[in-house]
Amino acid sequence: MRNIKLTLEYDGTDFVGWQTQNNGRSVQQELTRVLQQILQHDVSVHGAGRTDAGVHARGQVANFHTASSLAINSVRAALNGLLPHDVCVHEAVEVPESFHARKDAVSRTYSYHISFVPLAIGRQYQWYIGYRLDLDAMKEIAHAITGEHDFESFCKYDTQVVDFRCSVRRSEWVSVPDGLVYNVEANRFLYGMVRALVGTMVDVGRGYTAASDFPDIMAAKDRKCAGMAAPAHGLCLEAVTY
Amino acid sequence: MRNIKLTLEYDGTDFVGWQTQNNGRSVQQELTRVLQQILQHDVSVHGAGRTDAGVHARGQVANFHTASSLAINSVRAALNGLLPHDVCVHEAVEVPESFHARKDAVSRTYSYHISFVPLAIGRQYQWYIGYRLDLDAMKEIAHAITGEHDFESFCKYDTQVVDFRCSVRRSEWVSVPDGLVYNVEANRFLYGMVRALVGTMVDVGRGYTAASDFPDIMAAKDRKCAGMAAPAHGLCLEAVTY
Repeated sequence: MRNIKLTLEYDGTDFVGWQTQNNGRSVQQELTRVLQQILQHDVSVHGAGRTDAGVHARGQVANFHTASSLAINSVRAALNGLLPHDVCVHEAVEVPESFHARKDAVSRTYSYHISFVPLAIGRQYQWYIGYRLDLDAMKEIAHAITGEHDFESFCKYDTQVVDFRCSVRRSEWVSVPDGLVYNVEANRFLYGMVRALVGTMVDVGRGYTAASDFPDIMAAKDRKCAGMAAPAHGLCLEAVTY
Repeated sequence: MRNIKLTLEYDGTDFVGWQTQNNGRSVQQELTRVLQQILQHDVSVHGAGRTDAGVHARGQVANFHTASSLAINSVRAALNGLLPHDVCVHEAVEVPESFHARKDAVSRTYSYHISFVPLAIGRQYQWYIGYRLDLDAMKEIAHAITGEHDFESFCKYDTQVVDFRCSVRRSEWVSVPDGLVYNVEANRFLYGMVRALVGTMVDVGRGYTAASDFPDIMAAKDRKCAGMAAPAHGLCLEAVTY
C-alpha cells in the first residue's frame, strides 16, 4: 500500500473543526469524501492536529493509504479541483508506509492574530481588540511559557488526557502593522491550550491579571484559574514538523 | 448643516456593490440605514467610487450632511458598533459644507491581487491563476497605460458616459510572495475598467494576446477587442485623494 502525506490549508470559518462530527461539515470529512471519489475505495485520513471549530490551518498535515497507482501530482490536482473552496492542498508526497501524521509529528506551530483596528477585509482571521495592551507584560508571560511545563490550567476538560506536560520550543509576541502575532511551537498542545494561553496573556496585557500571578495560575492545574479562551478565528495551525 | 467625511473598509463578497440596488444588500444601503438609526433623520450618502458586486474597498470615501451635534468620535464608534461585520469605518472627520466625496475626488487608487498558488485563507481577495505569466510583457502594457488615453475599449456599456478619457498617474505590476499585485491610480475610472485592463494584461501574460497588439486594442474603442474582465474578488479600492 502507498502512504501519501498531504499538506493542507483551510479556512476554518465554515467548519466544525478538523475532526468528523455529527453536527456539521468537517475538514476530515470533506477530504475523505473527495479522496474516496478520486480513488474509488474507502480511505482513512489521519490529521496531525485536531483544530477546533473556526480555527484555520496553513500547514495541517494528513496522511492516508491507497492501493491506487494514480500519479502523485494527479492526486494533488484532483483534490484541488474537487475540494470545496475553503480547503486546498499545497503538497502531496509519498512517504514510508509506517508514517503517521499525528503520531510521528515532532512539533506543531500555531499563530494567533490580533488586530488593533476594526477590519472588514480579513476579519475572519484576526481578533479585533479595541483596548490598549501592555505588550511588555505579555512578552514576559510568553517567555515564561517556554520550556517544559504542566499546562493543565490551559486545557479544556478532556477525560482522555492524563499527561499535561508540553515542551514549548518557541513562544513569542511579534508586533505587526496595526496588530500583534503570537507564534508558539511545542511538541504537543492540549485541547484549547493556545486559545487559553492567548486569553490569559491578553488579560495580563489589559491589566485584568497581574503578570506576577502567572506562575500561580500555571501551578493551580485548574482551567478556571486561567483567562477566557481567545476567539477561535484568530488561531491558525501554521506547520507540523517531523 | 455639518458635513461628515468617512473612510470605509468593506469586504465586497456579500454585497451587490457600493450602490443601492433592488437585487440585494449594498454598502451604501447598509451605511444609510445605520446612519439614520444613529442620527434619527434621513441621510443621503455620497460615495467616491461605485464599486461593483464582489469588489472590496480599504479606502472608500463617503460623505453625508447632518444637523446632529453628536461628537465626531461617537459617530465613528456608533457606526462600527452597528454596521455589519463586513463594513467598518476607519475615519470620520468634519469637512466644509461644500465637500462632495465623488465630485471633489482628484484620484482613485485600486489594487488587483493575483495568487499563483491555490488559497483557502484569503481566497476571497485574490484571483488564483494556475498558469505561467510573462511578467515582463505585462509590465510593458502597464507602462503603456500610464498617461492620458481613451479607455472606451475597457469600458462596459454605459449610456451615461460620453467622455472616455482618463489620466492614469500610476500603473504597475509588483511581485509579491506567490503572486502579483497591480496598482493603478487615475483621476477617474470607467465602468469595469480595471478588471478589463487586468484581464487583457493577463491575456498578454499567458500569450493569448501579443503585447504589440495592445495599441490596436486601445485604438479600437470597442470593449469586444479587449480581454475578458478579471474576476471582481481580486479588486480593491485602496484610496481616494482630494
